[in-house]
Amino acid sequence: MSLRFVTGNEGKVREARAYFDGITDVEQVAYDYAEVQADDLETIASRGAVEAYRELDGTEPLFVEDSGLAIEALGGFPGPYSAYVEDTLGIERVWNLAADEENRRARFESVIAHVDGDPADPDVETFTGTVAGTIVAPRGEGGFGYDPIFAYNGATMAEMGATEKNAISHRGRAFATFAEWLAEDE
Amino acid sequence: MSLRFVTGNEGKVREARAYFDGITDVEQVAYDYAEVQADDLETIASRGAVEAYRELDGTEPLFVEDSGLAIEALGGFPGPYSAYVEDTLGIERVWNLAADEENRRARFESVIAHVDGDPADPDVETFTGTVAGTIVAPRGEGGFGYDPIFAYNGATMAEMGATEKNAISHRGRAFATFAEWLAEDE
Repeated sequence: MSLRFVTGNEGKVREARAYFDGITDVEQVAYDYAEVQADDLETIASRGAVEAYRELDGTEPLFVEDSGLAIEALGGFPGPYSAYVEDTLGIERVWNLAADEENRRARFESVIAHVDGDPADPDVETFTGTVAGTIVAPRGEGGFGYDPIFAYNGATMAEMGATEKNAISHRGRAFATFAEWLAEDE
Repeated sequence: MSLRFVTGNEGKVREARAYFDGITDVEQVAYDYAEVQADDLETIASRGAVEAYRELDGTEPLFVEDSGLAIEALGGFPGPYSAYVEDTLGIERVWNLAADEENRRARFESVIAHVDGDPADPDVETFTGTVAGTIVAPRGEGGFGYDPIFAYNGATMAEMGATEKNAISHRGRAFATFAEWLAEDE
């Protein structure tokens, strides 16, 4: 069995393969599906997965993954627009915004949407992983995205080794739940 | 002749009617089309208009309008996500972000997308209006959205009367160009 992962990010594909070892092969498909503007990642991932499923061929199952950072005192900002905000404001300015707040709590969230069945009325399953932490001044050389300003247990995600990071990562948690569901489904 | 304006905002419909007087009636249709994540308003408005055209009935022409604020020193932020950023950060924090920059130049942009023809291969025309100004500390009680922090010729949009504001407004300029095209088309 092989499962298609619709993403342009090879790092995510490598991460997925580690979780699906012995369950299924993962094949990367670089289709650029539309991300709708919505306040929740479930909607964005689900609609993107269905669009990709219909546009590709609608016979073999596939999944997509979408993730974001939500800062509590900023109403969940940057949320579903985390990539856009990283590109325009940059993480230093996001840190400055959080630094003005007493409450620095934040959450990384990852949502996987898996699609299968009849393309006209597909079956969509979503799997969510979250990690709660705090926003801090940028530290560390590893990771990517918001990792340098997101701290968990005293260390930023950019200061952790891969093993340590995967053990607590939102994406790792979503992949683990998804892998469990796939294994039961076999 | 009557033209459908797909929007939930009655204020925009009133504004449109002022420009289309003697050209066409404007009928409000409150269909909630998907806004895709894209860095330009043309793509968002065009795809939204086509979706609405197909979902509604695909026989009578319609248009949508989308607008946003782009702050030059912040890479065009908040851009297509202006409404989300207003809801989460709020305009006071957007002012704080701009206050840290030497360059306070910004641009309001409005894009109208009009759809007609065969739903399978529709004709889409877009009309753009922009106004250049500067970001300032919030002032004024009028207007809505980012009006209190957007200044043009020394006054913020929230300090202007309706006539003064309409004369320079991005949306007014887009409506005016669109109305001209409609009048020629008759």
